Formats: sequence, structure tokens, C-alpha cells
Amino acid sequence: MNTFGQLYRLTSFGESHGPAIGGIIDGMPAGIPIDLHKLQIELDRRRPGQSELVTARQETDKVEILSGFFDGKTLGTPIAFIVRNEDHNSTDYSEIEKVYRPSHADYTYSAKYGLRDYRGGGRSSARETISRVVAGAFAKQALEGFGIDIKAFTSQVGEIALTGTYRDYDLSLIDSNPVRCPDPAVANQMKDLILNIKSAGDTVGGIITCVITGCPVGLGDPVFGKLSSSLASAMMSINAAKGFDYGLGFSEIHKKGSEVIDNFFSSDDGCISVKTNHSGGIQGGISNGADIYFRVAFKPVATLLQPVETVDVEGKPTTLRAKGRHDPCVLPRAVPVVEAMAAMVIFDSLLLMRTNRL
Amino acid sequence: MNTFGQLYRLTSFGESHGPAIGGIIDGMPAGIPIDLHKLQIELDRRRPGQSELVTARQETDKVEILSGFFDGKTLGTPIAFIVRNEDHNSTDYSEIEKVYRPSHADYTYSAKYGLRDYRGGGRSSARETISRVVAGAFAKQALEGFGIDIKAFTSQVGEIALTGTYRDYDLSLIDSNPVRCPDPAVANQMKDLILNIKSAGDTVGGIITCVITGCPVGLGDPVFGKLSSSLASAMMSINAAKGFDYGLGFSEIHKKGSEVIDNFFSSDDGCISVKTNHSGGIQGGISNGADIYFRVAFKPVATLLQPVETVDVEGKPTTLRAKGRHDPCVLPRAVPVVEAMAAMVIFDSLLLMRTNRL
Amino acid sequence: MNTFGQLYRLTSFGESHGPAIGGIIDGMPAGIPIDLHKLQIELDRRRPGQSELVTARQETDKVEILSGFFDGKTLGTPIAFIVRNEDHNSTDYSEIEKVYRPSHADYTYSAKYGLRDYRGGGRSSARETISRVVAGAFAKQALEGFGIDIKAFTSQVGEIALTGTYRDYDLSLIDSNPVRCPDPAVANQMKDLILNIKSAGDTVGGIITCVITGCPVGLGDPVFGKLSSSLASAMMSINAAKGFDYGLGFSEIHKKGSEVIDNFFSSDDGCISVKTNHSGGIQGGISNGADIYFRVAFKPVATLLQPVETVDVEGKPTTLRAKGRHDPCVLPRAVPVVEAMAAMVIFDSLLLMRTNRL
Amino acid sequence: MNTFGQLYRLTSFGESHGPAIGGIIDGMPAGIPIDLHKLQIELDRRRPGQSELVTARQETDKVEILSGFFDGKTLGTPIAFIVRNEDHNSTDYSEIEKVYRPSHADYTYSAKYGLRDYRGGGRSSARETISRVVAGAFAKQALEGFGIDIKAFTSQVGEIALTGTYRDYDLSLIDSNPVRCPDPAVANQMKDLILNIKSAGDTVGGIITCVITGCPVGLGDPVFGKLSSSLASAMMSINAAKGFDYGLGFSEIHKKGSEVIDNFFSSDDGCISVKTNHSGGIQGGISNGADIYFRVAFKPVATLLQPVETVDVEGKPTTLRAKGRHDPCVLPRAVPVVEAMAAMVIFDSLLLMRTNRL
Repeated sequence: MNTFGQLYRLTSFGESHGPAIGGIIDGMPAGIPIDLHKLQIELDRRRPGQSELVTARQETDKVEILSGFFDGKTLGTPIAFIVRNEDHNSTDYSEIEKVYRPSHADYTYSAKYGLRDYRGGGRSSARETISRVVAGAFAKQALEGFGIDIKAFTSQVGEIALTGTYRDYDLSLIDSNPVRCPDPAVANQMKDLILNIKSAGDTVGGIITCVITGCPVGLGDPVFGKLSSSLASAMMSINAAKGFDYGLGFSEIHKKGSEVIDNFFSSDDGCISVKTNHSGGIQGGISNGADIYFRVAFKPVATLLQPVETVDVEGKPTTLRAKGRHDPCVLPRAVPVVEAMAAMVIFDSLLLMRTNRL
Repeated sequence: MNTFGQLYRLTSFGESHGPAIGGIIDGMPAGIPIDLHKLQIELDRRRPGQSELVTARQETDKVEILSGFFDGKTLGTPIAFIVRNEDHNSTDYSEIEKVYRPSHADYTYSAKYGLRDYRGGGRSSARETISRVVAGAFAKQALEGFGIDIKAFTSQVGEIALTGTYRDYDLSLIDSNPVRCPDPAVANQMKDLILNIKSAGDTVGGIITCVITGCPVGLGDPVFGKLSSSLASAMMSINAAKGFDYGLGFSEIHKKGSEVIDNFFSSDDGCISVKTNHSGGIQGGISNGADIYFRVAFKPVATLLQPVETVDVEGKPTTLRAKGRHDPCVLPRAVPVVEAMAAMVIFDSLLLMRTNRL
Repeated sequence: MNTFGQLYRLTSFGESHGPAIGGIIDGMPAGIPIDLHKLQIELDRRRPGQSELVTARQETDKVEILSGFFDGKTLGTPIAFIVRNEDHNSTDYSEIEKVYRPSHADYTYSAKYGLRDYRGGGRSSARETISRVVAGAFAKQALEGFGIDIKAFTSQVGEIALTGTYRDYDLSLIDSNPVRCPDPAVANQMKDLILNIKSAGDTVGGIITCVITGCPVGLGDPVFGKLSSSLASAMMSINAAKGFDYGLGFSEIHKKGSEVIDNFFSSDDGCISVKTNHSGGIQGGISNGADIYFRVAFKPVATLLQPVETVDVEGKPTTLRAKGRHDPCVLPRAVPVVEAMAAMVIFDSLLLMRTNRL
Repeated sequence: MNTFGQLYRLTSFGESHGPAIGGIIDGMPAGIPIDLHKLQIELDRRRPGQSELVTARQETDKVEILSGFFDGKTLGTPIAFIVRNEDHNSTDYSEIEKVYRPSHADYTYSAKYGLRDYRGGGRSSARETISRVVAGAFAKQALEGFGIDIKAFTSQVGEIALTGTYRDYDLSLIDSNPVRCPDPAVANQMKDLILNIKSAGDTVGGIITCVITGCPVGLGDPVFGKLSSSLASAMMSINAAKGFDYGLGFSEIHKKGSEVIDNFFSSDDGCISVKTNHSGGIQGGISNGADIYFRVAFKPVATLLQPVETVDVEGKPTTLRAKGRHDPCVLPRAVPVVEAMAAMVIFDSLLLMRTNRL
């Protein structure tokens, strides 16, 4: 199953070392103006080689739109897109034909399918997230017309964490540094940590926080289609994601109910709002009009530039010495992916909501 | 969208104060022997009134199977089931017709649908989880035939937490106490905390840990259908769930890659296994044969037995004094729900895996 | 897969000789007023025992709504309903435990599932269509609010056929006779034919024609979701259906393109319309605002009240002498089923169309 | 909704005058050997310019596989493919920017989406069927491993029809003539008719018959997933299809039940079979092991090379004089499309059947 979404659907394809990566967006309404330049900017935020913090692979990742788009607007028909794979350096990967990299998908794929494209990570490669960023960029631009904005940022790398909540920072600064952290001072510390870890041939994880503003009341469904469930599913489908929470999340369990309920009040314009937002903008699975915010935990990348013990495809012990160019920390490049997945979920929910009442 | 699953699908229905709660299981293979007595035991673990730690409502929650089952076996056709709602004490709820309870779904439902069944929580009631437990119980019994076992337990209530991992406890003790914690001493502390909180008219949250043993290699799909994504979606669809992680999860972000990769080795019988299991049994989204384990964070219940400030349906400020019988802590009753949702995900994945190769 | 529809979805359940037949309607918008009396009338049109032309089985088929409905309106949540099975006369069916009835589903079910509920037809029983009629009746009432009307009628029984098109008859006469044919004289001939066939222990087939008026332009999707494809899928899922065509259908193949294209013109109110309607209201898979009409061919029922040669479950030759009460012709009772399936398709398409443009 | 199938799924994309046509096949099992040369042959059977009976447009329609395929075998991951659009002769179509062609999708698309790609037929172009032929060719090759064979042929053009059933012809002769009719003499008559019609600037319709041999017992689901329903949905989604029936179909309605039931017998090898096959290989919606056969009616193409009255996009009366190169009869090129859609349905059903029992 390589399709995500119910009405706004991305079906993605592509192995890292095949001819191309891409996807088909189905369910995009007709007549939405799309700025392809802005779309490419999102891809560039995900691109390798953009800073010293990420893999040095050089890929321009230029997207070609093959259908569903005409005269600057969506046609209401499927939008297919491809990004050609350019930087095939198969010597980097030749060893993994015969060896299972620890904590990678090599072994599980081989066992599941009985064969795999051993020239690279195949579908488990981070290149797969290109298709998510494209589909998310279309959704983001559609959401702008509704005043809905989505911003993700790196809030923790290893032990270095932002101390405030998202309200304490100027989120326009997120892209001012290669870590994508809205506090420049903390961003610097994170950067130093990543470079140190990198020089030791090791890797580090962290947390991305995402904030969605401007949502109407009513997104999400009461039971299995809770907005929180859809967001969790979306985020946990990203490579290296290990955890998700929203609102107070895991830190709420230490509190009493009386400390965390969000009392309602009526604002001057007659709108019902919450005084606090421990619920993270979602109550009973449905958006309540307050900011939606959530966190995604990412593990340290499993590809180390130091010898690791493992087995070959015949089960014999061996030592793997990874070569090539790898990310010491996925977070900077995962920020646009988190935003893209969030945009797809919110836009899908918005379309579904149009059918809740006639 | 009230359907969960791709091949093994539950479609659930029912408002808390309507005639019945229930669902239809579609996609259950034919010929699976099912012990309805064991199924009822699962429902009894979820039932109100089972201990002093949970709501005192009395509902027998006897399930009636309407189809798809004959001579002790599944027919391969849809299995419909209902549980009649018995304990309608509408005076308990009469006030909520006119008032929005804080951190409940009353307001978001009303705004989304334009109307609601104000006699109770409707679809947002915890009674809705009955249908999950039934569908999960069918899946659990089918999984037993494959040697797959699923056990969840309360690992934290408020500040009181188990200090070891699931391997440090005798999981057969889970149901030996009303908290459903495998360490009887810690369970006692948790129980005292819940009773104290209850007597103060307050509520408390916590964490449920779940362990799945005996899975084959190959469950889950590489991209959007990652097993971790499906489990997250399942867990975050449970009432009051605020967070999910698997393997080391949120605690992994503090570590270096070299500390958390799971080295492969070949066991004496020639099977490839992992020396450690920081990955929680899932690599690249696909089960690797090791134990799958994950955590779910639950918030303190939003219904307090103390006055809370809110607004009525016209937006005017008011004070709500909840009456009736409510859970001070959802965790003891949520344990079978977590197991049920996990069972559905694993069984669905197992069916899907049968189509990965011919 | 026992679910029909994409946004307006019916999941049905029930064996003919189990406790109940029913289903869950998901995706019904909130706030739709529903007249349960009118709904029961639809069920009564499908009911056995309503005339001498149909099976004499006596079942009241009273529907109970279990959820999703409150104060006369839909809640936007799943609508579950059941009809209890009453007239269990298992001696009628005892023989079919051991014998495969020709042209029935006994053999294919047994081979597919390895077991079956041999007390009756199970899921292949015409009782299964109860759930369709209920879900269709909800859809029909919702469609009335849009001025969309659906009428089916018997247009052919055996060799006796209406000679005109649907425009030549007063469709309000459909229910004036037990055959459900709008021409009373032809209806009488059909009735005589059915009774003759019945007295010979034989059965007869025919054609149902269905007309949908008042549809907006734009229902249906360009490729796989063509309205014609959805209608075909719906109709061919009805028991005993053997063929489907729309517009001129099979009779169009004898004509030249110049004879059957539908020229456009603008009516006085500025609307674009077609001068003729050979296309049956659907062009490129999408409704064009003209009447939608189609035909469904039904085979003669396979249950004969005369000896037939067959094999038992062990493959040994045997002669089956069907007892009990069976329909000599399905058409009179299939008319409301055809309408119901059409209503579900049209309403589903109407909901989907709300997401084609923002 | 541009996805077809439940487990074996094709998502198609592409406007006739955009950069490319193509699709993604999801759910193809791993390890299936595929001969790309044979796949291209299927595309060549669908290609324009292959004979004097079809449009003279020249398009090589060479398919490029972008993913999911490695070392001659499927990987179990999504198979993306594209065919570039080459023969853009926009002057052929320039007029249709401003005029609605009768019985085409121009008007319904414009009304549905509010805009369209006016350079050609967009999604309603017959070029869209390229993606079906590719996905069908993959399915066909997978089915060969199970001994399942699918053959379609032209059985009627205008008034000229084959008089026998499929058993009366040598189906290896289908591709021996440009009409794709297994009786060379009748094929010649059909060819003459098409050429006459063509020279008059007119068009003609007909019937394609399809036969599927070698199916196991058990394909298809009892209710909405009847194999007959899936095949009908598949066929009626093809451009210009107006009708579908299987087995005796529309001609069965003239017969008595006693004339058309298929008596069972046990063959010498102990297999249960039917003596006759009026059911067309499907009983109760499920394959019974006998040959599956069905018919699809195609209308005369709506594009005439003679003046036709219509309206422009502003509703003003005008006369359209189609230029360019068009098919006088779709049947020769629709034969591989019918086979492809049938192959997808059968393969999807085969995969689903693997989950009916454990």
C-alpha cells in the first residue's frame, strides 16, 4: 500500500537507485493556482548537499509535472510528477548487496519480498520523501487560500533542546539557519553538536515540533479518523520516526485533570475558544480552532561511518564499513517532510469536512 | 470514516445513549475456531464497575453475534455484533445538553455536525471501545494459531512508573490487580494514587506499554503502511491517547547512533536475529522477528467531579458540576483496548503479507 | 469486501438463517430529516409474501435503527440497522446441507471458504438485499432534497416487453400492480406469464429499467469512477443480475455515429442541453443533466420446483427436489433493490462532487 | 478517483496533450518475471496507426518503467511507468477550445471542474487506456503462471456478427486480421463495413467478447465484490462502453429456469463441473472453474468527419467540422483494453482469495 490519504491521496513510487522517484496526487480539486517555483523551494529544503550538516550527495531534485496542471492551475485530474535520480554512485553501495546493514531495512525487505534492489536502500531510502514534499507543497498552497499555515522546526538535537514552547519563538527564523531551529543561539549549539558527532563517524537524533494555525473547527472524525490518529499515522510513516505526541502529550501524564483541562470562554466576537491549549487544538479527535501542535521523535541515523558488526545475506558474521555520504542527523532535512505530511492530512480533512453536512 | 483496517476491517457504530453499540468485522478468513467465552472475558476486562478504580456504572456488556459465525467457526462472511446499552441514567447527563464540557468533544461535534445526541458523549463515549475489544478478540484468537501473543499493561500512573522494561516482569501477573500492572507492589502504589485522586474529584493519566511476541519477519509495508505507522494510527484513535512511541522511542533521541543500532547475528538454528532490540522489533517499517513493543500516553480524564468553568451552547459563561459515575483514570480499562487495536493491526498485516509473494 | 460506496458507504452483514440481516451506513451527512415510515414502505416493496407472484414466505422485515439517528434527523455518525430473521423453516432447507443446488452459490461458497452455513443460502440469499433497500431509502430521502428522483420498473418478463421507452408511460402507475410495470395491460400479461410458469414449477427472467431525473451536471469521475461504471458495478452486484446497459446500450451498436450523437442546444433559460438523449444522461462518464436511464437483465431464478440433476457434497450424482416457497420471478421484488442501489451511487457521487472544486 | 482495484491497484494519470500518460501499479507481488517485450506487444495492439481501420495518428507508445522492476523481476514495490505523448498536432484540436463536441466529455468536464485542458480530450481521450494496457500486461503475465488465459475478440461490428459462440472459433486467429475477429471471413466483412463507414465520414459500434480460461473455483466475493460486478465495473469504465453482460446475459431472459440451469456432475478425476455453462463461469458472484465469458457493447465513436450541430462554450449555436485523424470504429483497438481490464480484475481476485482461508 503506497497510497496516503482518503480524498487527497498521494501514491508514491521509486527506488533510490532506479530511474526516478515520484508520485501521483489524486483528489486535488480543480482550479487551484499553484506556484511551481514555491514548490521547488520546498524540495530544495529537503535536498541533499544544502549545508554541511547533511549528506554531501549532489542531486538537483528538479521536479517535472506530467499531468493535471495546465495554465498555472490544477485541472481536478491526477497530478503526476517525477524527479530523476542523478547521483548514482553505485560503488558507494556495492557492499550492501551482500551484507545486511544493522537497523536498516535490508534484512526485513529481503525476508518479506524474497529479493530486493540491492543497489541502494530502495524504497527505504530517504529519497522516497521527495514525493511527500511535492504532494505536501500542493496541499500547502491550497491551504493558504483558507488561511491555514503549517510550520515545523527542530526543537531538540541529542540533549540540546529548546526550553520554551512554540509561542516563545519567532518562527520566521526557522530557515535562517541550517538546523531549522527558530532560536539562533540554540541552533548554533545544535549545529556544533551535529558536526562533532559527524566527525566521530556517529549520528544523533532529536525532535521536530510542528504548529498548524488557522484551522477551522471540525477537522477530523470522531473515532478511527481522529485528526490526532491521522497525524500520528502520517508522521510515523516518515523514515526514522520513533515517536509522536500532540498537545501536552507524554508530559501530560504527570498532571492532574484539573491542571490540564482547557476551559472554554467566549471571545469578544462571540467565538467560543479555549483559555489554555493543553489539548493541542484537538478535542475528541476533532480540531477546535486553537493551534494544533505536535512533536515527532527521530532516532539517530543507522548508517555510521565506523565499523559495525553484522551478518551477510547468508547469515555469516562480518564487519561493515560504510562508505559514501550520509546524514549525521536527519532533522534538518526532515522538517519540510513533517510539514508536507501535515499539509496532506489537514487538506484531506478539509475536503472530507465538506461532506459532513449538505 | 468509521472503518479501521485494510483487509481485516472493523466498522463500528453506536452512541453511548442510543439503543446499542457494535460493529461489523469484514475480512475475517473462514474456518477460524472462536471461543465466545474468551471473547466475553475480554469485554469484561473493559467493562465499567469491575473494580473501585473505575466508574461504578453497571453494564453487563453481553455481546450478541448476529452473523458470520456458525458451529463455532468463522464463515468468512461479515461478523456483526451488538451490545445493548442498558444503564441509561439520563439525569446524569441532562446538563450537558446545554453546556460544553471542557476538553470533551461536545463543542467540536456540535460545530462539525450542527447537531449532536446530547443525551451523552455519543460517539466520543468510551463505550465506543466495546466494538474494538470484540474485533480485537477475534483477531487475538486467530493470531494464537500463529503463536503470536499480545500483552499490554499499565506501566505508569501519574508519577508512579515501572522502572524496568517489559522483560523484567512476569506478564502473567497483569490481571492479578485492578490496575493491570505486572509488578504487584507498584500496582498497589498506583491504586492508592488513583483512589486519592478520585476522592479529590480529580483525575490522573499514565502510560500503557504493549508487547507483541512471536511475529514473523515481514509484517508491515515499506512506506505509508509501516507497521509503526499503523500501530500509531490505531493507538492514537483510542479516547484520551496523547502520545505513542515504539522501541526506545522518545528516549532514543538522547543517544548516539552507535549506542542504539541493533547488530545482527546468526543464532545456532541459522536464524538471523538482533543482539539488542532498540528498534522495537520494527526496521524500515517492517517486523524483524524480535519482540515488538510500544508505549501509549493517556491524558487524565477530562470529566472532573469538581466545578469547572465553561460556556453553554450559546456561548454564555457558566459553571459545570459534573454528576454521575466517571473513571478517575482510564488506564485499567484501556489495557484491553490497546491489546485489541494491536491485534487488529497485526492480523491485518499478516493477511496482507500473504499477498507479497505468490 | 462487504462495503459498497466511497463516501456514502454501506457495509452489510447477515446470513439468511442467522439471527439477523443488517448493515452500517457510514458517511451520511448530519442533519438530514428521515421519515422512517417511508423507509419501511421501501422494505415492504421488497418483502416476501406481498403478492401471489412472489415467494409465500412470511417475514415482516421490520427495521430497527440502532445508531446515528436522533430526533428525526441523521447525526453524521454511522447508522446501524438490523432486521431480525423470523421465518426459519429449516426443514425447507435441510436437504441442501448435503447437495449442491445447480446454478446456486452452494458449491462455489463451499469451495471458496471450505465451509458454509448450510441452513440456507447464507449471504447469497435474496434476504441480503434488505440492507441495500435500507441504505438506499436513506439515500433516496436525502436526494429528494436536491430534486433527484429515481424510479425503476419491470420492462420485460420472458418474451413480454414494453414497446415504448420510459417517456411513454405514467411512472406513477408502477406500484399499481404486483409486477411493477407502468403499463397495466402489459402488467397483466406479465402476471399471467409468471403464474403459468410458477404452476409448472419453473421460473422466468426479465429486464428492469431505471430512470433518474433531476441530476446536476458533473456526477461521476472521468476514468475508473465513471458514473456508468459505478452504476454497472452496483447493478451487477444484485442477485441474479446478468447484464447492464445504459442509454441506447446494446441496441446502439447497430447504428451509425451520425444517428446517435446527441446534439447540444441552448434552451431559453440559457442552459446547455441535448436535443436527443441516446447517451442516457452520461457523457465521458459524467452526468450531463439529462435523464439517466439504464437496464438490468435478470436471469430466471435457479430454484425450480421440479426434480433437477446435480451432485452431493461428495460429488455423487443425485436428484434434488426443491421444496419450500420460492420466487418464480425475481423482478417484482428486485425493483426496489435496483432503485436502492441507484440511489446509493447517485448520492455517493453527489458527495464526491462537493470536493471537485473549492 | 483514478485508482482501480483493491489489492492489485492501478492509479493512472495523464491528459492526451500533456507531457505523458502513465500510472503506478501497486500491490504486485515480488519475484514475478516480466517480459517487457511482450508488454510492448500489448501496447502495440492498442497503438494508433497500426492498420487502415484505425486512426492514422503516429505514436510509438514506448513504455518506460521507472520503478518496482529489477533484474527482470518485480520487486513487490510500486511499478511506475510513463509513455510520452509525441504526436501533438494542436491545430487538429484548436477548435475544441471554444466548442463542445456532441456526445463527448468536453461539456461535462467543463461543468464539473470549471476548467479543462482544451488542447485535446484530456482524461477522456482514448490515450488514457495506455495505462490500463500496461497494468493489464503485468497482470496477464502473472496469471500465466497460474495457467489462466484471457482472450478478447471483436464479435460484432454494426449488423455483422459472429453466429457461433467462442467455442466455435480458433481464438489463435484473433490477431490474424486488423479487426481482431477469429473468423477470417466475417472479419473481412467487418473490415469492409468499417472502411465504407469511414469513407462516409461516419462511425460504427459493435461488441467485444472476452473469454477467461483456467480460473480456479473461488474468485470473487459473495455480495458487492461479485466477480461479475467487478468485471462490469472494469468494462464499463472503458471509453465508449455502453453495455455488459456475462454468460447468457440479456438473451437469458427469454428462457425458462429449467432451460438455463447448469447441472453439476463429477468428472472422471473427481472434480465437480457443470454440464452446460449458461452461468458464464460465475455462480453467486464466484467463479466455479468453468470458462468465464462476457460481452461488452461499444457505441459508434462520437467524432464524425462530417458537420455536426452543437454549441460553443458560451452556449451559442455553431457547426463543428472535425478535422484530424480519428477511429471510425473503436473495437479493434479496444480488444487489448478489454483483456487488460479483465486481467486486472482476475489477478486482484486471485490475490484477495489468498486471504479467504489461512
